Amino acid sequence: MVVKNQIKFVKSLQQKKYRNQSGMFVVEGIKSVRELLRSDYMVEKVYVTDPEILEGNPSDIELVTERELKQMSGLQHPNTALGVFHIPKPSKIEYNDWILALDDVRDPGNLGTIIRLCDWFGIQHLICSEHTVDCYNPKVLQATMGSITRVNIGYTDLHRFLGQAKVPIYGAFMEGSSIYQEAFPKVGILLMGNEGKGISEELSAIVSKKVSIPRFGGSAAESLNVAMATSILLNEIRREE
Amino acid sequence: MVVKNQIKFVKSLQQKKYRNQSGMFVVEGIKSVRELLRSDYMVEKVYVTDPEILEGNPSDIELVTERELKQMSGLQHPNTALGVFHIPKPSKIEYNDWILALDDVRDPGNLGTIIRLCDWFGIQHLICSEHTVDCYNPKVLQATMGSITRVNIGYTDLHRFLGQAKVPIYGAFMEGSSIYQEAFPKVGILLMGNEGKGISEELSAIVSKKVSIPRFGGSAAESLNVAMATSILLNEIRREE
Repeated sequence: MVVKNQIKFVKSLQQKKYRNQSGMFVVEGIKSVRELLRSDYMVEKVYVTDPEILEGNPSDIELVTERELKQMSGLQHPNTALGVFHIPKPSKIEYNDWILALDDVRDPGNLGTIIRLCDWFGIQHLICSEHTVDCYNPKVLQATMGSITRVNIGYTDLHRFLGQAKVPIYGAFMEGSSIYQEAFPKVGILLMGNEGKGISEELSAIVSKKVSIPRFGGSAAESLNVAMATSILLNEIRREE
Repeated sequence: MVVKNQIKFVKSLQQKKYRNQSGMFVVEGIKSVRELLRSDYMVEKVYVTDPEILEGNPSDIELVTERELKQMSGLQHPNTALGVFHIPKPSKIEYNDWILALDDVRDPGNLGTIIRLCDWFGIQHLICSEHTVDCYNPKVLQATMGSITRVNIGYTDLHRFLGQAKVPIYGAFMEGSSIYQEAFPKVGILLMGNEGKGISEELSAIVSKKVSIPRFGGSAAESLNVAMATSILLNEIRREE
């Protein structure tokens, strides 16, 4: 049986403040828990309502009642498993491939989708500004569909990071030059901006090349969602001519 | 003052059944209401809490209290305006450009995003299978960001529609040939599948060409979200070499 304090602790991990304090985060659903267990992430504890669903080290796994799981969970209808894992230290950034940088992306669904895109396109490093939504936010984790385990994500002062970069920085702007005219180099940083405001003025000044996704057919569309734009840009960077 | 029946009617339009019965739908938020009023959509009535925010035909506009607006609204925090509009008849499909077809896309956010993509890439016709989520679902409307007024959307028996098509049908599959090897023609139909199941077997048989978005860097990502895949494919179809 789990003690009250454990329930309280797991529940607290819904909030960024407590994730930062403890260095841990929570993942829900048997599929995601399995994916995390298979990865390099260090497990703290897995709670299951059915002892059959998971193999592993008995000290890592604890049987709970459905009621207890519900108390720990951030979901209305919790799944049969919930795992607590340690937030890993970001690995050292290598400049031998493209890196994606995000300037204050705030929507959890957008960040989750972008992590999934990084995974698909083999982008190893994702660098987020300090005000970008936390990647261990439960809604982000859900949207990554397990891709979180295969992308190295760091939060940093983006102005300083980009200022020190020795590779070209491509930024997505409404008024940049067409991506179709661009011969993307083998190595670079792609910078994407906030949902409403785009890339901040401060960072715009450091961008080496402003690029834009053309609109077609006299379209009056105001903008593309940042995750859509990221998918198109990563595809352009990766595509073979 | 609005009468009780009006409130009940507007509220009922949150549900597909009542939208179909009445041939009307509801849009919330001053920005979206303005966009619809500027478009070809026929207005039934606009409810506002502030008489200053909208100009127009006085018979179309009715002043309501915040309480009344809240009773009509599907939102927790309703905006200052709500409009009831008539669902237009889909215009005749012309085969002089690419058409997008959706096989049972179920997530409102995905459909809304795909409508926004059609608008951006100048795709005029979007043909949805009968089990695709209703485009006048409030969550879809919200995700389209006004693009609904610039895309012609129809629901039909996709099997029959595609069977009669005189243009090549490209379908997005996990195991198709690389989109980078494809010389897309000027005219065609792009078919995208359901979030979990992809394109149904029945429709797969009618597809002329199966295409796929390559994965990179030994990625173990299982799939791309359907809206992401649509954005990449529409970009590939439109891009100038």
